[in-house]
Amino acid sequence: MIPARVIEAKRDGRTLDPGLLEDFLRAYLRGEVPDYQMAAFLMAAYLRGLDEVETDVFVRCMLESGSTLDLTELPGPKVDKHSTGGVGDKVSLALAPLVAALGVFVPMIAGRGLGHTGGTLDKLEAIPGFQTDLSPTRFKQVLREVGCAIMGQTAEIAPLDRRLYALRDVIGTVSSMPLIAASIMSKKLAEGLDGLLLDVKVGSGAFIPAEDDARVLAERMVTIGAGHGLRTVALMTAMDRPLGSAVGVGLETAEAIDCLRGEGPSDLRELVLVEAAEMACLADPDLTVEDARGRAEAALSSGAGLEKLARLVEAQGGDVDVVEDPSSLRTAPERRDVVAATGGVVLEVRPRPLGEAVVALGGGRLLMHQPVDPRVGFVLSVVPGDEVTVGDALGVVHARNADEAETATRVLREAVRIGDRGEHPVLRALVSGRIGGAAG
Amino acid sequence: MIPARVIEAKRDGRTLDPGLLEDFLRAYLRGEVPDYQMAAFLMAAYLRGLDEVETDVFVRCMLESGSTLDLTELPGPKVDKHSTGGVGDKVSLALAPLVAALGVFVPMIAGRGLGHTGGTLDKLEAIPGFQTDLSPTRFKQVLREVGCAIMGQTAEIAPLDRRLYALRDVIGTVSSMPLIAASIMSKKLAEGLDGLLLDVKVGSGAFIPAEDDARVLAERMVTIGAGHGLRTVALMTAMDRPLGSAVGVGLETAEAIDCLRGEGPSDLRELVLVEAAEMACLADPDLTVEDARGRAEAALSSGAGLEKLARLVEAQGGDVDVVEDPSSLRTAPERRDVVAATGGVVLEVRPRPLGEAVVALGGGRLLMHQPVDPRVGFVLSVVPGDEVTVGDALGVVHARNADEAETATRVLREAVRIGDRGEHPVLRALVSGRIGGAAG
Repeated sequence: MIPARVIEAKRDGRTLDPGLLEDFLRAYLRGEVPDYQMAAFLMAAYLRGLDEVETDVFVRCMLESGSTLDLTELPGPKVDKHSTGGVGDKVSLALAPLVAALGVFVPMIAGRGLGHTGGTLDKLEAIPGFQTDLSPTRFKQVLREVGCAIMGQTAEIAPLDRRLYALRDVIGTVSSMPLIAASIMSKKLAEGLDGLLLDVKVGSGAFIPAEDDARVLAERMVTIGAGHGLRTVALMTAMDRPLGSAVGVGLETAEAIDCLRGEGPSDLRELVLVEAAEMACLADPDLTVEDARGRAEAALSSGAGLEKLARLVEAQGGDVDVVEDPSSLRTAPERRDVVAATGGVVLEVRPRPLGEAVVALGGGRLLMHQPVDPRVGFVLSVVPGDEVTVGDALGVVHARNADEAETATRVLREAVRIGDRGEHPVLRALVSGRIGGAAG
Repeated sequence: MIPARVIEAKRDGRTLDPGLLEDFLRAYLRGEVPDYQMAAFLMAAYLRGLDEVETDVFVRCMLESGSTLDLTELPGPKVDKHSTGGVGDKVSLALAPLVAALGVFVPMIAGRGLGHTGGTLDKLEAIPGFQTDLSPTRFKQVLREVGCAIMGQTAEIAPLDRRLYALRDVIGTVSSMPLIAASIMSKKLAEGLDGLLLDVKVGSGAFIPAEDDARVLAERMVTIGAGHGLRTVALMTAMDRPLGSAVGVGLETAEAIDCLRGEGPSDLRELVLVEAAEMACLADPDLTVEDARGRAEAALSSGAGLEKLARLVEAQGGDVDVVEDPSSLRTAPERRDVVAATGGVVLEVRPRPLGEAVVALGGGRLLMHQPVDPRVGFVLSVVPGDEVTVGDALGVVHARNADEAETATRVLREAVRIGDRGEHPVLRALVSGRIGGAAG
């Protein structure tokens, strides 16, 4: 294996022999292929593509580069969920306890926010005391006792993915569909799951805005899962507007708790129920989607999901009072009501500027390891399609100080596009596609 | 300037702002952009291209990264020649002294052989004692005294080009036309020339075999020269067969000396005269090509060119006896006559297998800094179009031992394609194109 020849083959758009590509990746892991050769290869792969077989070589090498979780001791099926990330996407926080309430083990390995989208770990850590850096032993213990557990990626899982991601991040090759698919799936395959639900966001607030690209990613991930014997379903869900009303770390956590209390925005509730039903079906392929949906609704209305969340928070060291009273998560010193300057119909609530404004408010990060302020963000009062008159509330800005509140107020006003009465918003369906699995 | 944004812009096929690209290159020089980011950029540039303005930013940064030769003290015009390299291309060895004999200073900075083509420095060093690692001071002294001087690239000239070339070599991005053009021209612009002749080889034995690619390279280099006020002409010359009869370091040196003695192959003699005339016109734009050609022929037949070579060899420490008797360069211990196994018409003499066989014989290198054996190679007896009968000589193999001679014999037999009588070879014109300059 001569590294320059491998790079040239991909540069010229050729499909690589799987053995050759594997030798290249393993040599990189051993430090025999330097970062600059891998960087050139990744750029060539970004521009020329990787087919399914090549992508699977990446998945295998990433997976085998580290250790895997052994969850065989758990007395029941294990299903996780992964979202490609969007603005206001707090689904996981409500979903994991709700699905656990259905008797499915949910070993959730989650990430942190980066750029315009938030991360599940940051949102959980908005709850005072909540620990996300569990040892594998403690993670399994919480999982067995509560039915769900949520922690961050460990250094032992897929270190090759970690190294490649760090490199891709600084050489402009993050947004390669096959490499994203391999990165996500290698980590999920290391969890020892029986089923995996993928939530692939589509629209201007998603990391991969275009429907076609998102579909390629979804299909590639479902194919990888199937190839490794993991039941995998991908849903394509709307990210042309924020999900729910809250955007910002702690505000979203509060909204997820509201959801488990049977309150909160209807789109969030609906997506949580759809995903809970999918996960229940992944755990038990004999279950119909209708039955699963019914059970999820029952677990939500009975408070069983909320109870699981309380037990999860307690088990991971968090302040359980927050689950009783999520308003303690809404404590930013500066709050500013934003009202409509013109009347008409809300045609758009643009998610990306709101997500970027959360970063500017101190509630997000542009570089890994930066701290985030859990108090700041937006709580929206309108959704596309609402009629407003001058002076009607558009939402509330939560900020650290008056200056930042002022800037965020302008962003919110511009993010809400108001058209003439009689116009209608053009919106994506909440769930616009479903790939994989047996159910229709 | 955020390096990842620069890489992404090129990845997406955008044209870079010249100031931004310059910042990127200067940050690389300062060590602030690491090799892995440059590697990703170079691959993106290879696949997406660089326009003339972007290429010129590379040229300027390479040029300004090092020092330049100050040849202003020389009392006359200074013209160099650069060949992109081919099999049997020993033109420079005869050309530099011949043009010096026309009263033009030829400060030649030459290279070493790599892969299937030889290098001028290696060929000169076949002459016992010949020194090519001159100090700038000694180089100028020889130049002033003899009229020509030949040395290797110094570390002081265009160090950015040196670093980028070393990186490109191991990441599969050598054969990018804009990057080759920038690399060649940055070094030539550092020589303080009045004129530059480029010999761009076309055909299967050239580094850039395809006519279209070679033309792009030639045009890009002439444009760069013109942009920097350097009179530049590029000739597109034939490399679908070896140039002349000798292929191999010392054998080619002997043939170049033969040429200056008025002997040797006619194609070599013709190309030397064409190039000498071009260089004389570059030195003196008022000269007509016909007059220049006449003067070059006169300098060849009078022995003035040979006399200059003798003085050059003496000035650079070489054994002048070799110029008197070049047969001392034909000293390989094993010589093998190769004869035709079938009769017919020679349709092809394929240059690349012969060039590669010289490497196998020990007379070339695949990695920089490997030593070469100056004695080995081929002396061909046929050119395309010759009629041969069984047993007629095809050429002579010069080798270190019988085994290597045997292998090279098979290569030579296969490199000479013999067709039926009545067939005709399809050959490129010796000079198929001319770009730049005023003359037609």
